[in-house]
Amino acid sequence: MDLEALVRAALDEDIGGGDVTTEACIAADATSTGFLIAKQDLVVAGQAAAAAVFAEMGVQYAVEHDDGAEVSRGTIVARVSGNTRGILTGERLALNFLMRLSGIATNTREHVQAADGAFSVIDTRKTTPLHRTLEKAAVRAGGGKNHRFALYDGVLIKDNHLQACGSVKDAVSRARAAAHHLLAIEVEAETLEQALQAVDAGADCVLLDNMDDERLRESVDALKGRVRIEASGNMTVERLTQLREKGIRPDQVSIGGLIHQARWVDLSLELD
Amino acid sequence: MDLEALVRAALDEDIGGGDVTTEACIAADATSTGFLIAKQDLVVAGQAAAAAVFAEMGVQYAVEHDDGAEVSRGTIVARVSGNTRGILTGERLALNFLMRLSGIATNTREHVQAADGAFSVIDTRKTTPLHRTLEKAAVRAGGGKNHRFALYDGVLIKDNHLQACGSVKDAVSRARAAAHHLLAIEVEAETLEQALQAVDAGADCVLLDNMDDERLRESVDALKGRVRIEASGNMTVERLTQLREKGIRPDQVSIGGLIHQARWVDLSLELD
Amino acid sequence: MDLEALVRAALDEDIGGGDVTTEACIAADATSTGFLIAKQDLVVAGQAAAAAVFAEMGVQYAVEHDDGAEVSRGTIVARVSGNTRGILTGERLALNFLMRLSGIATNTREHVQAADGAFSVIDTRKTTPLHRTLEKAAVRAGGGKNHRFALYDGVLIKDNHLQACGSVKDAVSRARAAAHHLLAIEVEAETLEQALQAVDAGADCVLLDNMDDERLRESVDALKGRVRIEASGNMTVERLTQLREKGIRPDQVSIGGLIHQARWVDLSLELD
Amino acid sequence: MDLEALVRAALDEDIGGGDVTTEACIAADATSTGFLIAKQDLVVAGQAAAAAVFAEMGVQYAVEHDDGAEVSRGTIVARVSGNTRGILTGERLALNFLMRLSGIATNTREHVQAADGAFSVIDTRKTTPLHRTLEKAAVRAGGGKNHRFALYDGVLIKDNHLQACGSVKDAVSRARAAAHHLLAIEVEAETLEQALQAVDAGADCVLLDNMDDERLRESVDALKGRVRIEASGNMTVERLTQLREKGIRPDQVSIGGLIHQARWVDLSLELD
Amino acid sequence: MDLEALVRAALDEDIGGGDVTTEACIAADATSTGFLIAKQDLVVAGQAAAAAVFAEMGVQYAVEHDDGAEVSRGTIVARVSGNTRGILTGERLALNFLMRLSGIATNTREHVQAADGAFSVIDTRKTTPLHRTLEKAAVRAGGGKNHRFALYDGVLIKDNHLQACGSVKDAVSRARAAAHHLLAIEVEAETLEQALQAVDAGADCVLLDNMDDERLRESVDALKGRVRIEASGNMTVERLTQLREKGIRPDQVSIGGLIHQARWVDLSLELD
Amino acid sequence: MDLEALVRAALDEDIGGGDVTTEACIAADATSTGFLIAKQDLVVAGQAAAAAVFAEMGVQYAVEHDDGAEVSRGTIVARVSGNTRGILTGERLALNFLMRLSGIATNTREHVQAADGAFSVIDTRKTTPLHRTLEKAAVRAGGGKNHRFALYDGVLIKDNHLQACGSVKDAVSRARAAAHHLLAIEVEAETLEQALQAVDAGADCVLLDNMDDERLRESVDALKGRVRIEASGNMTVERLTQLREKGIRPDQVSIGGLIHQARWVDLSLELD
Repeated sequence: MDLEALVRAALDEDIGGGDVTTEACIAADATSTGFLIAKQDLVVAGQAAAAAVFAEMGVQYAVEHDDGAEVSRGTIVARVSGNTRGILTGERLALNFLMRLSGIATNTREHVQAADGAFSVIDTRKTTPLHRTLEKAAVRAGGGKNHRFALYDGVLIKDNHLQACGSVKDAVSRARAAAHHLLAIEVEAETLEQALQAVDAGADCVLLDNMDDERLRESVDALKGRVRIEASGNMTVERLTQLREKGIRPDQVSIGGLIHQARWVDLSLELD
Repeated sequence: MDLEALVRAALDEDIGGGDVTTEACIAADATSTGFLIAKQDLVVAGQAAAAAVFAEMGVQYAVEHDDGAEVSRGTIVARVSGNTRGILTGERLALNFLMRLSGIATNTREHVQAADGAFSVIDTRKTTPLHRTLEKAAVRAGGGKNHRFALYDGVLIKDNHLQACGSVKDAVSRARAAAHHLLAIEVEAETLEQALQAVDAGADCVLLDNMDDERLRESVDALKGRVRIEASGNMTVERLTQLREKGIRPDQVSIGGLIHQARWVDLSLELD
Repeated sequence: MDLEALVRAALDEDIGGGDVTTEACIAADATSTGFLIAKQDLVVAGQAAAAAVFAEMGVQYAVEHDDGAEVSRGTIVARVSGNTRGILTGERLALNFLMRLSGIATNTREHVQAADGAFSVIDTRKTTPLHRTLEKAAVRAGGGKNHRFALYDGVLIKDNHLQACGSVKDAVSRARAAAHHLLAIEVEAETLEQALQAVDAGADCVLLDNMDDERLRESVDALKGRVRIEASGNMTVERLTQLREKGIRPDQVSIGGLIHQARWVDLSLELD
Repeated sequence: MDLEALVRAALDEDIGGGDVTTEACIAADATSTGFLIAKQDLVVAGQAAAAAVFAEMGVQYAVEHDDGAEVSRGTIVARVSGNTRGILTGERLALNFLMRLSGIATNTREHVQAADGAFSVIDTRKTTPLHRTLEKAAVRAGGGKNHRFALYDGVLIKDNHLQACGSVKDAVSRARAAAHHLLAIEVEAETLEQALQAVDAGADCVLLDNMDDERLRESVDALKGRVRIEASGNMTVERLTQLREKGIRPDQVSIGGLIHQARWVDLSLELD
Repeated sequence: MDLEALVRAALDEDIGGGDVTTEACIAADATSTGFLIAKQDLVVAGQAAAAAVFAEMGVQYAVEHDDGAEVSRGTIVARVSGNTRGILTGERLALNFLMRLSGIATNTREHVQAADGAFSVIDTRKTTPLHRTLEKAAVRAGGGKNHRFALYDGVLIKDNHLQACGSVKDAVSRARAAAHHLLAIEVEAETLEQALQAVDAGADCVLLDNMDDERLRESVDALKGRVRIEASGNMTVERLTQLREKGIRPDQVSIGGLIHQARWVDLSLELD
Repeated sequence: MDLEALVRAALDEDIGGGDVTTEACIAADATSTGFLIAKQDLVVAGQAAAAAVFAEMGVQYAVEHDDGAEVSRGTIVARVSGNTRGILTGERLALNFLMRLSGIATNTREHVQAADGAFSVIDTRKTTPLHRTLEKAAVRAGGGKNHRFALYDGVLIKDNHLQACGSVKDAVSRARAAAHHLLAIEVEAETLEQALQAVDAGADCVLLDNMDDERLRESVDALKGRVRIEASGNMTVERLTQLREKGIRPDQVSIGGLIHQARWVDLSLELD
């Protein structure tokens, strides 16, 4: 579902047979101008979605601050102009996109600042159904990077695959035989021993899951230079800071919470 | 978009051309059983969505705890059995639904407990695009009630409508003339004066927005019995407790944060 | 299904792989002008649908008489200009919309004139599947008003609900608990006794169904001022006239026949 | 759009987010039986559509009288059994199909009886958008026959084509060159002279449009045996009777009014 | 599925979540010009599809040689200009259409030249699913003609129908009764005897299937002037030449291989 | 578009409003059995698509030889049983899938046999729009392997990217920065020099395009062990044999012609 289709379906969800209030109260040919304003400090994301909402409503949408911009409370992030009914009927959906996605970007930015370049901060597949493209873009707006998009563009052998498959070696060799040559193979490991098996089996990347700092340091030391190293599990802003300060440096840390622990930030639309 | 269509589109988002890992590692006819387990205390929501995901994958899904149940960490909320590939490929999407929606139910439950029956706790239209039906059901699972579903099943005249329309009186009379006789009319008011104008104009409900405790008490006292009263704006668990304790009792309090400040709770799928 | 989607699907129904006749007989770059003309006195409705058909065909469509206009035989209601193939291929569908919907508007106008302001004349859910939005707009074009649009934007407890539910009281109280606060509740009653039970149970509106004049008068007298009163059942132009002349005045009369007893009126497209 | 898709879209139109009344008043697991009963004499049509509606609702639907059956007032035409909510929520749409389509079949039957085998009674492309398959089936249920389904399965050169194309001869020869060999060619003629030109040009069928009885008799006499003859224009039950009695016998008479002058007949659903 | 929908679905197939390479390597606002060039002698077909692909990508597409043109190796058949990303991302799909369809046109042209006007060369329903409209247009670009488009716009009684139905006579008379008057009837015959039965039963066309030259000559001689004659079965360029040289002249020869034995021809896109 | 959707759309293309012939000639409740038989030696592919067609028609389909099986002329590859109308109406589409896809598998098998294990034989993105999943499965059925599926699951920097981007080094480093860590990077090179630049820039794979045997040998010798090597350009069965015999061994050879030079093989459906 591309952005245009998503926006149309979402407008249909909210408008259905019609916006009774607006159609009753506002003349069909009335026009207005207005603006979207940050009600708190935030990192902008979702401008393309908000623009698509107003484009569907036939309303002009002029971006003042692009995705990725850090803006303070009271900043106007975009201006609208056009048919008043269109503005009022599209308002809620546009804000729902902007508030959600800017919330993710803002949350990601905090994690990236905690990492301070010691390792990449990347997302996961724990995303809101049908919103993955937008949410992964919001992570990038916040300064994070993306893991694979979905089940089809990367091999990630997880604990349940290993349990169902038998051995790390079998799993990796089957994956190598089945996947085309441009897909790399990553293996989730809960212990250094598993990680080393994965390396021996030919994995391109190991995912060290749920290790405490000491086990993580030991594993990174043992694996560095032999394979790409990803760490995950309970990774908060505090933990990232701690890893950085302790000098524990996997290549990348993956954090579902960039998206799923983010809260909406506050923006509103006001008419001039 | 009904639940089945939503689930199919979401599976398409995650699977696309195929789950490379699972297809490579797991035999096509392998079967497994497993369970979904709460990794923290939570209120369950989203069982229908999770069931729909596994139904699409051809996997049996047996609910152990229905939406609305409070379960403690370690509780099995559902069991799966069937084709191993189906279980592993559907796992993430099913969990994405359950973790999000249970997060909303859990968050709502806290608010409802704070209200303790002094007023209804209801949601808003600040919902995730295309997920409104599910999110509003999660609010009910948490013990909350729903506001109108969308722009078509209720009249809510907000500040921007009033600004564009002119007077409260005009807005209400236009809405009464245009809306069919089974739709009631609510008017957002920032002052008691506005609220009284709305009542005089024939509104069925007033929405007292962003008032502090004293102004809210004054308004509720003045309006009680003459019109349905809704309060909103910065309504947290703490504020609800405070209103209840102070005896300030609108008929209902609407809170966008039931949904948009909820964080995902943690559940996982494990194979037997 | 919005108007654009409806029109596309309808064009696909009629054109499918191609308009063999027009493609064979008319040069691809030929252009023409023409007009749509009333072949009988009628009330116009369906201009938006006709315009949407020709827009899809890339043909200019200029409305001469808007929905709601009463025009006499021989009046040009719209003009077309553009690609000849587009005009001829779209002709039938545009006329099918206009003839149907103007038929409904014309029929509604007769009923509204019979009521002469004594009560509102409103439609029902007896509409052609997928055409409800258009048909309800045609009723408005004829001077009628709309009942609820569908099952989701109003509560109407009918005889079968009462039979399955048990008592009027239970039905109304369950509806009040389940429906959000902006939806009013209407109850169908075949006797004054039932109507009074509904009022006692808190119904906002009663639907007096299939009563003869005397029973209707008695019920209206007993209920007036206590609840909104709707009458229905065998309501023809003659019956409306009779009710008006007898001074029997419910608030509104609902008539499925506005739509389902309407016949198409005659219009045709002619090239200049 | 096939029947299943049509029914789903129509249910979505009527139910949308939910049937508030039924969900409130009726327990989710309640079951009922009931029947659909003719409230007037009629010819049945639309059983497949009604069945499809209830199938979508998970309700058993047992046909008592197939499409084409003549039934008298009080006859049960089908029985339903299953989930009470499903029955009540699907009731209106099923009846909307049955009442419309049986109306068309009943109306067609009258015309066919008037023709009494003297000529075929056939329909036109004046059908309700998206309902053509159902309406043409209703015409067959009434004993009529169908003209071409749409613009792609037959060549019909009408007055506007002739005007835009120039001569009958050119139009027919272009059509013969462009259409594949299994499509026959029909030409609309307002005079015998035009009809003869069409025959000379190689038309397979001529459509004598809007002729009075004498001109029609003259034309049929002149053309009989040389080409298939269709008559149309103001063809009512009375006119058909008159043509038959006068011995004026084209091969077929096409009548838009079979469909567009039909009124819904009355049926209702009652619970046992 | 119309051309626009086909192209959108095909772009979705190829692009999905994004063209990783182009998005990484090419600046979002870079622009380029380029051309599509024939790498071998060929007959052009598919320009509308290629144009639709680039239109979706927002790229200008200027046709240099229309469908049906014979061009030699090194000829530029179209030019593109616009956003570089759009050009590169759309390149493959546009070429996939052009190479396939020009292959069909080129192959058809050879067959048509072999027939040299002795009989029409027509296609069959052996087409690539969802590509029939395009493939049949490519046959016309190559100089061939089309058989019926699909199962709905012509009656073709084949061997399996005859086997299941019983007799030729029954099959034809049932078809005549059921099909509307603008659909002609063709019968497949493996022997002259069957063909004569079909003629006696009223068939408009006979399809002489898999006859050798002598049986074909005998049948054509016996049937000529009484019915339209189509021949099929193992019809290659060589066989067509042979039939023409021997003076065996059915009205038309149908050849699945126009489409299904065609190979893609070579074209490429080059940037200036 | 998944297989079920593809099959439904393809049936709609062929059946549309109905199979006039079959509906006329065959009783609605007639049943038959039959079989699909190879009319030439071939490698089977497309059984899932054929099965999906008959499943839509409500016909049982029993596979006798799975995808990948080599069968000789006269072999029954599947059996059908069920409603006769369903069999006859679905016949053409099922065969269109089987004949196309078995043609691709058969063609691929010849190439794979020529390679005889000296290198992998892989496909390209030169596939029929909307049929890529099926065509790539047919390549695997023939013994070939797949290249990336689409633009989103692998980075392939081609000549046009290099021309638009500037240098190999820049292109690779941009791709590495933008692509997630599980996507490998391949660069097209027309000379050994370019290939070495790609290796230096960090490419995971080089595509040696259109080199003659000597240049290809030289390049493979220089690159072996440093990077994955793919060769392409004018790769026929003869060329593969020649490369193998000369001992020129890239890791893989990609061949668009596996798919686009394949011709349909012959199968037919016969009733018992």
